[in-house]
Amino acid sequence: MAAVKACNILITGANRGLGLETVKQLTEDSCPKRHIFATCRDPEGPKSEALRELVKKHPGVITIIRLDADDPSSIKESAKKVGSLLGNSGLNLLVNNAGIVARGTIQTSSAENMKNTFSTNVIGPLLIIKEYLPYLQTAAKASGTPGMSCNKAAVINISTVGGSISTMPSLFSQFPVLPYCVSKAGFNMLTVLAADELRADKILCMALHSGWVKTELRREKALHFFPHSELQGGDVLRNVN
Amino acid sequence: MAAVKACNILITGANRGLGLETVKQLTEDSCPKRHIFATCRDPEGPKSEALRELVKKHPGVITIIRLDADDPSSIKESAKKVGSLLGNSGLNLLVNNAGIVARGTIQTSSAENMKNTFSTNVIGPLLIIKEYLPYLQTAAKASGTPGMSCNKAAVINISTVGGSISTMPSLFSQFPVLPYCVSKAGFNMLTVLAADELRADKILCMALHSGWVKTELRREKALHFFPHSELQGGDVLRNVN
Repeated sequence: MAAVKACNILITGANRGLGLETVKQLTEDSCPKRHIFATCRDPEGPKSEALRELVKKHPGVITIIRLDADDPSSIKESAKKVGSLLGNSGLNLLVNNAGIVARGTIQTSSAENMKNTFSTNVIGPLLIIKEYLPYLQTAAKASGTPGMSCNKAAVINISTVGGSISTMPSLFSQFPVLPYCVSKAGFNMLTVLAADELRADKILCMALHSGWVKTELRREKALHFFPHSELQGGDVLRNVN
Repeated sequence: MAAVKACNILITGANRGLGLETVKQLTEDSCPKRHIFATCRDPEGPKSEALRELVKKHPGVITIIRLDADDPSSIKESAKKVGSLLGNSGLNLLVNNAGIVARGTIQTSSAENMKNTFSTNVIGPLLIIKEYLPYLQTAAKASGTPGMSCNKAAVINISTVGGSISTMPSLFSQFPVLPYCVSKAGFNMLTVLAADELRADKILCMALHSGWVKTELRREKALHFFPHSELQGGDVLRNVN
């Protein structure tokens, strides 16, 4: 993670899995001005305990912010709060990591499952990019360096091979998660269109597939699918800058 | 359209555009046992007048059925009605043609627009495939021929280059229809997963891009984008069998 020099970073779904591991690794490198906004649905709940412990270990570096990707008003609220904490500084890096998985096939997927998955995995990130765009624009303008970079102003959307139209059919019988795959294909489209739109502001936007990682969301199948994988968290940003 | 020999065919969004043109071309060929279920949101409304006229011209060949892709109960209801009309016959060809377009960019797309587009363009076709699957299975079993074919049992999802993740970014500034593109990328994923799942029943499932056609939905941009295109409707199924 040493390559990432971004100062102000926001990560959604930061209380566990890839999100928590990303926060952890970002606190461990030697970037003195770094501040991390670690967002999650329920900052006070039992599922955020590990994140709260991490905050205690790194005082002044991490701020936990409530953000539910399925709730537009909480997205707006979080942006206001982060904006007031940023003051005149911009947001250098926004990591759209929060997401949900829903199982299902053509014959078993319900309209409700389809709607919920799309709402959290696609509409949420869209609204998050929209609400945080002014802070990303501020960072891009303030940087003074040409081109685009994760250290200047960027959106990283954590995607998955599950959103790959060319790859998924061969994996579908092992991973019957149709609502998830459909939402992630939409998410990939959102990412390429955002990249096109934000380029004018010199804001980088890209999707990242972390590889199969044994997080709470995916561990059940991880060893089955990649028996030699012993990853506990993602070196998500290692090669991105 | 002479190549299509399917007997019982259902087409959604059949009251105008590609849907209406497809019904028209299918009534013009010489398949004696053909019956077409032409579905639309409002069979009695002014936007269905051309379809009603077509029914009069071809008595006994077309049945208009109410089906709103955004309304799960109307999908169920339509399937019951079609089932009772089919009797012991199966449905050979289901054409998921109904769809809506919504304009928008990252900065202007609303959650509402995203939800509505996804509901009509993705959840609708999923539920339609699910509800009509028993009739497709009946047709596949009854055919007695090996392999898969549009003349035996098939689902054709009318897609678009707007759902192509590799193609859309270069067209996005001309066609800022983000909610539509995101929904169609999801629809393409739905299609490849459906193709995988339905293969066991020998039901063909595929996506089709008709090319840019001057329908009511798209005509505004058609001539601008393809100035030499004078198509009035799609020869949608010409080469599919």
